[in-house]
Amino acid sequence: MAKFVVIGERIHCISPTIKKAMEEMNPEPIIKRAKEQIEAGATYIDVNIGPAEKNGPELMKWAVKTIQEACNNVPLALDTSNRAAIEAGISVYDRTNGKPIVNSADAGDRIENIDLAAANDAIVIALCSKAGVPSDNDERMVYCQELLERGMNEGMDPSDMWFDPLFLVIKGMQDKQMAVLDFIGQLSDMGLNSTGGLSNVSNGTPKYIRPILDAATVAMAMCRGLTSAIMNPCDARVMETIKASDIIKNNFLYADSFLEI
Amino acid sequence: MAKFVVIGERIHCISPTIKKAMEEMNPEPIIKRAKEQIEAGATYIDVNIGPAEKNGPELMKWAVKTIQEACNNVPLALDTSNRAAIEAGISVYDRTNGKPIVNSADAGDRIENIDLAAANDAIVIALCSKAGVPSDNDERMVYCQELLERGMNEGMDPSDMWFDPLFLVIKGMQDKQMAVLDFIGQLSDMGLNSTGGLSNVSNGTPKYIRPILDAATVAMAMCRGLTSAIMNPCDARVMETIKASDIIKNNFLYADSFLEI
Repeated sequence: MAKFVVIGERIHCISPTIKKAMEEMNPEPIIKRAKEQIEAGATYIDVNIGPAEKNGPELMKWAVKTIQEACNNVPLALDTSNRAAIEAGISVYDRTNGKPIVNSADAGDRIENIDLAAANDAIVIALCSKAGVPSDNDERMVYCQELLERGMNEGMDPSDMWFDPLFLVIKGMQDKQMAVLDFIGQLSDMGLNSTGGLSNVSNGTPKYIRPILDAATVAMAMCRGLTSAIMNPCDARVMETIKASDIIKNNFLYADSFLEI
Repeated sequence: MAKFVVIGERIHCISPTIKKAMEEMNPEPIIKRAKEQIEAGATYIDVNIGPAEKNGPELMKWAVKTIQEACNNVPLALDTSNRAAIEAGISVYDRTNGKPIVNSADAGDRIENIDLAAANDAIVIALCSKAGVPSDNDERMVYCQELLERGMNEGMDPSDMWFDPLFLVIKGMQDKQMAVLDFIGQLSDMGLNSTGGLSNVSNGTPKYIRPILDAATVAMAMCRGLTSAIMNPCDARVMETIKASDIIKNNFLYADSFLEI
């Protein structure tokens, strides 16, 4: 089995520092945050520019080139609702260390992002939702099948479709957590890759509790077959838990130094 | 679902302090260690007196009375290969806060400890092994069935049989970890309770790594249905992970203060 893939989420326009850097096209804060995440163990770096309605294509091109040139062509997830911006980003993307990820498609308004990924030999994060949170795993599976069929019709390899079950917030949807994990198990049984926004689960809980809930969730989800997460790689507890879970799953060979790898 | 049951393992005759206290029948060190574990969140306290060939019955009686009288009749697991000592311990045991646990029976030489538990309305830890480590889950299941049949023939409620899959050491049996977790899933699917010596997995790894491996393992095992572990409740990371996993499993209602409960 392959090692778990961490997609670093910290280049996001909701961060005031990043928002300002994107507005000014100032590379330093963005490169700094990319490097911190790579150092902490991220494989992919997510680049969320928001809707970027004014200058999306220009901004994404700049961000992709800025980060990849400064960080040894680290592979990126291009994260925006602006389709033209994703295409523009891919046009300047260097594939040396991995395909670009299109973040994201769903079974509703964003289903055409599957076609975009297929046309550009990209990976796509495929949300198992249409409008809002799916009510149960039957609904999740309907959307998963719609997305899978769309991708395969467009010639995608299913391994390039990373299905997102939608992690749910414990404060409010505590009784739905095991269903999400069960759905990850279903995806895994189908041989499919999966990912998702891990820290959703601990949203609104006290700051010192979040790593504890996120770490327990990721170990459970990896036990059920989760292959990736969109998360903060600078959270040491979660990263240690991922490495330990990879060891338990025999994804790489144990050594006393495994936490430093 | 019921909350996870932590059986505190730290009253064990391999500890020099405890060994000396048992030899001298000095209550203080034993009471101190029981209280520490209860304070840290243990539900049951394991009392391991070793084979105690010379004075097993007398020693176990003394230990049971000493701990229960000092600690509000905390429920105990009576842990020795000396059957007469277990019976003696049960004869003075106060059931106010829970049945005694017989630790342990297996499908080999110790199968009669099932009968002992049945005759005394006790819980029994039933190791899914006969001689040494079972080679695979088919073998584990054969032993589980033998033990279950024995217990039910003796009139036990299956919920009083806590099946132990035998957690295995990562350093040496890394490729067997997921099989153990799968077996816990099989026990859970059968509606059976389970327990085991959690820290076996991290045996021989550096001290700072052990809580990380143990915590990841317990979250994964709880995801598959593990209902109890024999462990060190003073390991904060593992205890936090158990509480978080209980929250994720909806075993008790989330509150921001859940770690303090």
